[in-house]
Formats: sequence, C-alpha cells, structure tokens
Amino acid sequence: MTSDHLAPVAVLGLGAMGRALAGAFLDAGHPTTVWNRSGGKGEDLVARGAVLAPSAEEAVRRAELTVVCVVDYDASQAIVEPLADALAGRVLVNLTSDSPERARTAAAWADEHGIAYLDGAVMVPTPLVGGPQALILFAGARPVFEKYESILKALAGQAAHLGEDHGLAAVYDLSMLDLFYASMSGLVHAFALAREDKVAATALAPYLNSIAAILPDIATGMAATLDSGEYGGQEANLAMMTASVDHLLHVSRDRGLDTGHLEAIKAVADRAIAQGHGADDWASTIEALKPKT
Amino acid sequence: MTSDHLAPVAVLGLGAMGRALAGAFLDAGHPTTVWNRSGGKGEDLVARGAVLAPSAEEAVRRAELTVVCVVDYDASQAIVEPLADALAGRVLVNLTSDSPERARTAAAWADEHGIAYLDGAVMVPTPLVGGPQALILFAGARPVFEKYESILKALAGQAAHLGEDHGLAAVYDLSMLDLFYASMSGLVHAFALAREDKVAATALAPYLNSIAAILPDIATGMAATLDSGEYGGQEANLAMMTASVDHLLHVSRDRGLDTGHLEAIKAVADRAIAQGHGADDWASTIEALKPKT
Repeated sequence: MTSDHLAPVAVLGLGAMGRALAGAFLDAGHPTTVWNRSGGKGEDLVARGAVLAPSAEEAVRRAELTVVCVVDYDASQAIVEPLADALAGRVLVNLTSDSPERARTAAAWADEHGIAYLDGAVMVPTPLVGGPQALILFAGARPVFEKYESILKALAGQAAHLGEDHGLAAVYDLSMLDLFYASMSGLVHAFALAREDKVAATALAPYLNSIAAILPDIATGMAATLDSGEYGGQEANLAMMTASVDHLLHVSRDRGLDTGHLEAIKAVADRAIAQGHGADDWASTIEALKPKT
Repeated sequence: MTSDHLAPVAVLGLGAMGRALAGAFLDAGHPTTVWNRSGGKGEDLVARGAVLAPSAEEAVRRAELTVVCVVDYDASQAIVEPLADALAGRVLVNLTSDSPERARTAAAWADEHGIAYLDGAVMVPTPLVGGPQALILFAGARPVFEKYESILKALAGQAAHLGEDHGLAAVYDLSMLDLFYASMSGLVHAFALAREDKVAATALAPYLNSIAAILPDIATGMAATLDSGEYGGQEANLAMMTASVDHLLHVSRDRGLDTGHLEAIKAVADRAIAQGHGADDWASTIEALKPKT
C-alpha cells in the first residue's frame, strides 16, 4: 500500500534492525528503496513493495530521507562517505550504535558536505520497531528533526529529540544500557542467592518486581538531588546502606556465589564515605565515581 | 483509641523501626507495651497511649504477641533468651534483620522453649509502616501466621507468609536488597556517564525510568527461564549483550569513570560464554555465579 504523497525513503544496511526499519516504512506506505553491501538480502522486503537498489548511491538518489543502520560507524562512514555528492541537500539519519564521539565526528563530516544529518539510537528490539511503544532517540538540529518528524514517526511512535549535540542519542543510549546491565546483573544474582536457599525464581519474582516498581520514584528523586548537588540522607544514609551491602556480600560469599559486583559497589561507597558522605544519601556515591585528577 | 477486644501486644526495641511498629499497633487500637534496653526512649509512644514497661519480661507478660526489632540477632537473642519462661505459650515475632542462618538458629531456640515463633523482614522505610502499601515478609509455621495475621496486618497492609523455613524472610529480604543495590549503583553510574556529556540528571531520568519500566516483564520471564533451566536467546544473546557491556566499559573508562561494576558484570558474562552460553540469553549467567567446587 505505497502512497504517492508520502516521501520516498531509503534504508542502507539490511541486518535485523535495518530490515525492521524498512518494514516499518513500508507499513506506513512510504516508497522505500533498500540496499545492502552484501547481496542476498531484502527479497522479503521487495515482496512487500520495496525497491532493491543495485548501489547505495542509487538508493540515496531515489530518496528524500536515507536511514543507515549497520554494525558501527566504521561501517556506516565507509558506506556514506563515497555518497557525499548524492546526499548533499538530502537528509541522512544514522541509526547505527556507537560512541558519542563517533556520532559527532560523522555529523561534522555531514555538515562539511551540506548534508542534513540526524544521529539516532533505536531503544527497542526489532519486533517493536514501527509500533506505538517503540522509542527511538534523535539528536541534531531541531529544525531538521521537526521537518522530518512525521517520517521518523513511521519508525517509532516515541520519536524523541534530545538536543542539537549529535552525540546525545549515544549518550542517552549508553546511560540507559548502563542501568539496564546493572539491573540485569542484579536480577540474576538475586535469583542465584534465593536459589541457594531453595527458593524458586518464580516465587521470588513478584517480590523483586516490588523493588523494580520503586525505582522510577527513586530515579526521579535522585535526579533532582544530583542536579542540585545537595545530598540529603534523612531516611537512609550511605553509611547504613553500605553496611547493608557488606552484609549481602558476606552472605553471598558464604554461599560460594560470585561477589564481584557487590565488591565494586562497596568500594565506590567506601570511597564516598571516606570523602565525608557517610551521612548523605546514596546519590552522593557519584562523587566517588571519578577519581580526582 | 485502645480497644478492649484487640489483643495486647509488646514491642521490644525502640529504634526508629521499633517506634514505627509500636505506633502502628497503637494506631490500630492494640493495647501496646513498649520497652527499650537503654532508657529515654518511648515517651512519645506513651503520650499516644503505650505503656512503658520497666523490664522486657514485664512487657512480654502483658502481651499476647511480642515483636522484637533491634540491630541484629546477637542483640535480639540477648534480649529474648532470658525471657524463655515468660515467652513460653506466647508468640514472638522477630523483625530484626540478619542472615537466614541466624533466623533458623533463633527459631530452633524458640521451638525448644515452646515459644511460637515467626521471623520477619520489614521491607519499607519507617514512614510507610502500618500503611496499606507496607510490605512485611513473614516465615515460620503457617498456622501461627494465620492465627496472628490480623494483628500483623496492623503493621503492614501487605503481610506475606513465605513458608515454614524460618530463614525465608531473610532470604527474600537479601535477594530484594541484592537487586536494589545493583540498580542503585547502576542508576548513579548512568547519571554520572550522562553528566560527562553535560546531560542533566533530570533530563535523563524519564529515559532511565523507561528501563525500570521493562524490568518487571524481564524478571518474570527470566524467572520462568531459570526455573525451567532452558536458556533461549532468540532476541538478544549473551555474546551480543556482553559486547555491549564491553563498549559501555570502554566509553566509561575513556571518561575516567569508575568501571568496577561493569568489569565484574563482564567477568561473569565472559565466564558464562566460556562455559558455552554465548548463544543463550542473559539468564544463563547464573551458571557462572558459582564456581564449580
């Protein structure tokens, strides 16, 4: 169900995420051209109405907006740098994951060549791409984002513009992953600890979820504390909480469980206490995360 | 508003939590006797209708159900062991936090002396005690819990019985703390990482909360996986996720941030991959948390 009045788009890179993005464009009715460095990909998309371009340049020339989504920025720059002339005056949206620095360098290259450029980060797994719950973070010039927002919404119901700094999508992405992996590690360790005393994971899960349920309020309160720089500690202070971590560490060690992450958490908290934050709240551990240089 | 038909209760230990528990009994109308090892505490409770007993024994003898809540089990056993005769035929509820082993030892002592015994863990901060959202975990004989459940509900709207093993309240408590501290550490690190690129914590918080929001579904799914022992890995496998942790580690290190917890997480994941779980999901890291002995 392609539609003449919707902007033509191109997707470069047909890995799992690139295919999901192209599929979302097709579902929204955009004339969609696809291309992949190695052949043999995209037939399913062609069956759904996509045009498979013989070259990346032809894909770009057929489109008003080009999305590139490959393994890293080495790969994406290798694809787009030879296309500078074709991309000039068009918009390039890079949804490849890499570091903030690489995103900024790529944006500087695009700017030199007169290419409107947005960096982005897809925050949902492929099955959710294109849906109302899908979150994609975008960074770059706000007018560019606003001009193409309706096209980008085909990819994600939640298309968020974070700011002009092209590194911001990667910064938010990495920070979210930081919390994600810490929590995933904590979840597995919690299940392991309970298993040592013969508690089934499915019995424990609802109780762990009551911890997950209080995190949003904690994060919101912690954010206000961090931005103000005034650490309270009325209800639970760092010294008390660190004693609790230490207790957890000893119980885990007694059971022969790995305690690496607990030792790392305690080391940071101990440093913050040594800096004088014992009566402050947990947020004050941020002061111990970066050794003074 | 004490009421003749409600059971008389006693609270031993008037730290912040003990006072909150006594206050909740008073609010519910229970005739409440309180006692603390060192003097000068409990006047506020007396003003609200409590009786301050001159000895722990007198407090126990005035009550049908006695709650003890002190710093650890060394302290609680030092208080209750001399009261074995007074407690015989009554019920003792120990809400002191300690290890599962200590809870089991104390329960064995109580059993020897004909004392009905429940161990418990208060899972909310003092201001929430007695409210409908308050969660207190209980472990011990189910008939004892059921007989006294209506009294215990005065302390916590959510009074949960976990099982007969008296160590279970401590096990669940520790497992919940395990997730809590891992997540708290992850939150602060995520805010620190974003701060390095000049992102305000209050700007990042709603995005971190979108991670917190997916944890309950992840925990529920992970629990089913762990109890079945069959690790899938269709959507995101351990090898891919560990590469993502490694990327996060390098970006953090580049910014001079502490990477202790990320190194610990990666070490566990690397061990699991070495054991052959690279194509499995994150839950399989549980296999690397306990070195084979």
